[in-house]
Amino acid sequence: MSALASHLAPHAGVLAALDTSLADVARVFDEQLKSPLAPVQNLVEHVERYRGKMLRPMLVLLSGMACAQRHASPDDLRSLISREHLVVAATVEMVHMATLVHDDVLDEADVRRKGLTVNKLHGNEPAVILGDYLIASAYHLCATLPEVGPSRAIGRAAVLTASGELLQLHNRGNLDLSEETYFEIIRGKTAELIATACELGAAASGADEPTRRAMSEFGRAIGSAFQIQDDILDLLGEQAVVGKSLGKDIEKGKLTLPILRYLASLPADQRRAARARLAPLCVPNASPDQLASFVRDVNASGAVASARSTAASLIALAKDQLRVLPAGPAREALVSLADAVLERSA
Amino acid sequence: MSALASHLAPHAGVLAALDTSLADVARVFDEQLKSPLAPVQNLVEHVERYRGKMLRPMLVLLSGMACAQRHASPDDLRSLISREHLVVAATVEMVHMATLVHDDVLDEADVRRKGLTVNKLHGNEPAVILGDYLIASAYHLCATLPEVGPSRAIGRAAVLTASGELLQLHNRGNLDLSEETYFEIIRGKTAELIATACELGAAASGADEPTRRAMSEFGRAIGSAFQIQDDILDLLGEQAVVGKSLGKDIEKGKLTLPILRYLASLPADQRRAARARLAPLCVPNASPDQLASFVRDVNASGAVASARSTAASLIALAKDQLRVLPAGPAREALVSLADAVLERSA
Repeated sequence: MSALASHLAPHAGVLAALDTSLADVARVFDEQLKSPLAPVQNLVEHVERYRGKMLRPMLVLLSGMACAQRHASPDDLRSLISREHLVVAATVEMVHMATLVHDDVLDEADVRRKGLTVNKLHGNEPAVILGDYLIASAYHLCATLPEVGPSRAIGRAAVLTASGELLQLHNRGNLDLSEETYFEIIRGKTAELIATACELGAAASGADEPTRRAMSEFGRAIGSAFQIQDDILDLLGEQAVVGKSLGKDIEKGKLTLPILRYLASLPADQRRAARARLAPLCVPNASPDQLASFVRDVNASGAVASARSTAASLIALAKDQLRVLPAGPAREALVSLADAVLERSA
Repeated sequence: MSALASHLAPHAGVLAALDTSLADVARVFDEQLKSPLAPVQNLVEHVERYRGKMLRPMLVLLSGMACAQRHASPDDLRSLISREHLVVAATVEMVHMATLVHDDVLDEADVRRKGLTVNKLHGNEPAVILGDYLIASAYHLCATLPEVGPSRAIGRAAVLTASGELLQLHNRGNLDLSEETYFEIIRGKTAELIATACELGAAASGADEPTRRAMSEFGRAIGSAFQIQDDILDLLGEQAVVGKSLGKDIEKGKLTLPILRYLASLPADQRRAARARLAPLCVPNASPDQLASFVRDVNASGAVASARSTAASLIALAKDQLRVLPAGPAREALVSLADAVLERSA
């Protein structure tokens, strides 16, 4: 059971249905990626080990159960899950995994989820093309569904994901980054695919337009909160738990919400001084002491608490959207999952 | 007019309809890629200059015209082209362009079609993500069609393209590469997308199953011939015309058909000696003199002529497939385009 799923422990019936369905999703996933070419199959088997939290497939499945729930008793939640739910769930995870593989190339990362990255093991070239193979497989899988709607939504979400990443790259090292642009970046790179996961889960249960819109908003809000929490953990997490070295965002010149709030809280002259301290930290292998001292000041200023409270408001806003759903255990599980986004430490 | 289109000069009516339609394809293409985010839009405008031969869109449109031609006089060929043809044509070109952008990252190329590459101008990171943006945009565009069929076919072709590229990377520097694997590589990396272009062009004209299959085979055969001709030009083209330095395939450890035919033509002891000469050439910036001397021997052995004759058989096989089509100027133009694949010098 993944760390996120453990937050669903109070909802035993949902959790059991979810576990069975997630195993089905994994089967659809592996089946789609299978290649008759041995060198391709070897790479695929390596990358299948990257499957982590499975947040996106869980959201597809729970949204699907919650939207269909008026037709079923808690005992047969699993029966609410159709092939469309499974295919959409495997598709969003595959699109997400493709971005992980490409991100590892960009970040020159050596380790991912306690295994070596594809780029580390085989070089950048197979890693770039393997990412393309995963994206192509995701679209191909999604287009095996009889209707074109899910393909359209996934395509749109992937365009927005790439746009958000390009916007982030463009603003690397921009010490004047506005909060508005920060939110535009995280909505693109993280929230849109999560919004689409929730919306398509609902759509596969035959949800009406207002419900689908609400589920999309739910996903967008928890997606943004998820990214803010990620950004906070990069700054303040326990290295052993997060599983990667901290302060990486600063070294990559990514100004995240706590930093923006810290800078905004300072009077003009101190803000200039803080930017002057920050600039030399926006490089690979910046001085760990100066980095730690800067992060301490950010934390002491209350900026991390302020970012955390923004994430909490987004979660509240997300849970609000769930009122369109029929009451029941699947809806309750979505509430718990939304809370888990804030509570997670990795 | 592109170099390929110039081969269609004898078919004035077709050429006029094609020119109008290609302009429409370019509009659909630019419209889809447009981004409200300035940094994204800047990258897109740069990459739009990569549009070159437009072979794949031409094949979609000509296949479409040829398959629908029994319903129209040569005068109104343009009227046979529907939005589906235009969308599919723009989609295949976009998928192709994404692979060019990623290939330039892999090859660390500085120049593409006389302009600087995205990776040279902006670094590898935006180039990888821009490729992802192009792929996502291609799928999104294709999924705006009412039916899921074209999305499914494009997804399948893109999976096979990436598989072919992974197989090629895996066999880099493999001096024992078999012809069978060589053909598997080029079918994947080049021929499948071209086959899909022809098949979807036919499908958008309402062609029946046997006609679609024949058009798919036509595309697969000319696609393989196109790649063989590319490989020959890499070895023997005029540098000024081809627009890139020659012998690059050898330096990248890619054994192409002329090399394989040369090795196969030698008695065992000479083959061993030839492989020993080849091995030190399979590195970046190999000795130009030794490279030139090796290429001279390949050429003198008749291996290039042998590869060219294989490409010619593929073109003959391709043209054979066209017999299922109604006679008319669009079919004749496809015959000329097939011949142009062999005659091109760039």
